[in-house]
Amino acid sequence: MSLLTVGSVAFDKLETPFGKTDKIIGGAATFITLTASYFTDKNNMVAVVGEDFPQEMIDILTDHGISTEGMEIRKGEKTFFWHGKYHTDMNSRDTIEVHLNVMGDFDPKIPENYQDCRFLMLGNTSPSVQMKVLDSLHERPQFVLLDTMNFWMETALDDLKTVLRKIDCLTINDEEARILSGDYSLRRAAKTIMAMGPKTLIIKKGEHGALLFHEDKIFFCPALPLEEVFDPTGAGDTFAGGFIGYLAKTGDTSFENMKRAIIYGSAMASFCVEKFGTERIQNLLQTEIDSRVSEFVQLSSFEIK
Amino acid sequence: MSLLTVGSVAFDKLETPFGKTDKIIGGAATFITLTASYFTDKNNMVAVVGEDFPQEMIDILTDHGISTEGMEIRKGEKTFFWHGKYHTDMNSRDTIEVHLNVMGDFDPKIPENYQDCRFLMLGNTSPSVQMKVLDSLHERPQFVLLDTMNFWMETALDDLKTVLRKIDCLTINDEEARILSGDYSLRRAAKTIMAMGPKTLIIKKGEHGALLFHEDKIFFCPALPLEEVFDPTGAGDTFAGGFIGYLAKTGDTSFENMKRAIIYGSAMASFCVEKFGTERIQNLLQTEIDSRVSEFVQLSSFEIK
Repeated sequence: MSLLTVGSVAFDKLETPFGKTDKIIGGAATFITLTASYFTDKNNMVAVVGEDFPQEMIDILTDHGISTEGMEIRKGEKTFFWHGKYHTDMNSRDTIEVHLNVMGDFDPKIPENYQDCRFLMLGNTSPSVQMKVLDSLHERPQFVLLDTMNFWMETALDDLKTVLRKIDCLTINDEEARILSGDYSLRRAAKTIMAMGPKTLIIKKGEHGALLFHEDKIFFCPALPLEEVFDPTGAGDTFAGGFIGYLAKTGDTSFENMKRAIIYGSAMASFCVEKFGTERIQNLLQTEIDSRVSEFVQLSSFEIK
Repeated sequence: MSLLTVGSVAFDKLETPFGKTDKIIGGAATFITLTASYFTDKNNMVAVVGEDFPQEMIDILTDHGISTEGMEIRKGEKTFFWHGKYHTDMNSRDTIEVHLNVMGDFDPKIPENYQDCRFLMLGNTSPSVQMKVLDSLHERPQFVLLDTMNFWMETALDDLKTVLRKIDCLTINDEEARILSGDYSLRRAAKTIMAMGPKTLIIKKGEHGALLFHEDKIFFCPALPLEEVFDPTGAGDTFAGGFIGYLAKTGDTSFENMKRAIIYGSAMASFCVEKFGTERIQNLLQTEIDSRVSEFVQLSSFEIK
C-alpha cells in the first residue's frame, strides 16, 4: 500500500572516531524513504531542498523507486545543513554547526496523486508542520506514525499534544519518553503518553533495543550486538522506515504484525550504522536483509519446556 | 543435581527513594541460595558470619531447604555490614558505610558432604578465595559459574585471570565487561573475555536485560519493564541464583537450556526488586514464577512469516 513520508532532506557533515565526511546526503525523509524502498513500491516523499541540492542525489532516490514529485526545490536558497561530532562511546554527539536554511519555513504541499496514501510517516519536524500535513489530506490514512524529539517538547509542547491526539503511533527515545511523561519508569511513561492519543508507542533505546507498547501489550525488540558502530546518524529514521515500510507492504497493523515490523526496523537500523550516512542502506540485497532478520530470530528465540 | 554456593552473607542497611531499612539480611550467597531453592533441593552454602547473626535468619535459610552446615559462625566477631543509598534513577548508588568484619579474612572450608556438588556458584569475593574453593574440591564440578566485580579487576587482576582459566561461565555487568576487555563493543569484549577462559559469558545490563555468549552464539534476554523498581539490591545475585538453580535442576548445560535458565534468572530478578532485600524472593509461589516466565515469553516472542 502507498506510503507518504514528510520530513527533512539535508546535507550532513559528520565526525566519528572512525573518520570524517564532507557534505553527504542526510535528513529524516531520506533515511526513511530509502529504507522503505526495500518494502514498498508506492513510496512518496514530501520535502524541501535548496538550489544547491545536486540532481545526482535526487537520482539516487528515484533509482530506489521513491517519488520526488513532492520535493520542492527552492531557487536561490540553501538546503538544511547539519554538522555533528560523535563522542567516543557513539551514544552522544555535539552539534558543531546547524543551518536550517529552507527547513526554517518548511511548508509541505501534498501533490494530488499522493492523496491516496494509506500509511503516513511524519518525520521529525515541528508539530505545527506535522499537523498541517494531516489537515492537508482529504482522507485520513489507515495508519499515521509520528517521530518527534525533546526539542519540540521543550519549545512547542501544546502543538505537540494537539498532533498526538490525531496519530496512531509515536516513536521517541527513552529519554524523551521520560521528559514527555514526567515519569522515570518507562512502563508508566508509556501509559501516560498513550493517554495523550496514540494507541501505539515505540520507545527506542538505541543499542538496548526498543519497546513496542500497544494498548495493554508490550513487545521488546532487541538490538543486534554489533562489533562496530561506525556512524549512528539516521539509525532512528532507518528503524522507523523499516517499521512503516513493512506495515505498508503488508497492510496489516495488528499487534502481531507490528512485532514483525519492528524487527525489520531494527534489522535495517543495524545496517545503517555500518557505514557513513545512507551508504549502507542505499546498497542492500534482499538476501542480506533476510539473513539479518534471521540473526534477530536466533538472538531472541527460546522455548520454555 | 547438587548446587554449592560460596559467597557473602551480610547485614544490609538500605536507603532508596521509597524508604529505609534497618539491618536486614543480605549478601550474595543469601540471594543466590534463596533463589535457587525454587529450583533445586540440594542447595548447599559455604559462608561466614559473626556471633551477631541471629538464629532466625539462619532458620529462614534452612526453611528454604538450604544446608547451612558450611556456614561458619565466628565467636566474638561481627557479620559483614554494608550501608548503601540509591540515587533517584536506581541505576547508581553510594556506599555510606562498609565493615568487612568476618569477610575480611574469609577462608571457606568445604564440608565433606558438599564434595559431590555438580554445580558450583562462586559468588563475588576475592579471586584468591574463589580459587581456593576450586582447589578444595576433590573433583571438578560439571559447571562452575563465577561472579566478580570491577573492584577485583582493579586490585587483583592477575588472581582474577588465574581463576577465569578454571571456570565455565562468568557473569559481569556491561561496564565491567568493558573494563576487563578494554573494548567498548560488547560483542568484541565478549570474544576477548572468553579467550581468557570461560566458554560462556553473561553480560548483565540491568534494566536493559542480559546477553548470553557461548562459543560463537549469542542470546539476548530482555528485562521485564517494571512499573516500579523498589530496591535493586541483590538483583544480580538473584539473577545468577535463578540461572544456576535452573541448570542444577535440569542438569543440562546445553546452549538451548542456558537460554531457558537465563530467562528464569531474569524472571527471579524481576521479583527481587519489588521489595526490600530478600523479602520478595523469600515468599514466592510456583504459580507466580510460572506466570512471570510467561510474561517473558509474551514480551519477546514473534514470528517472521
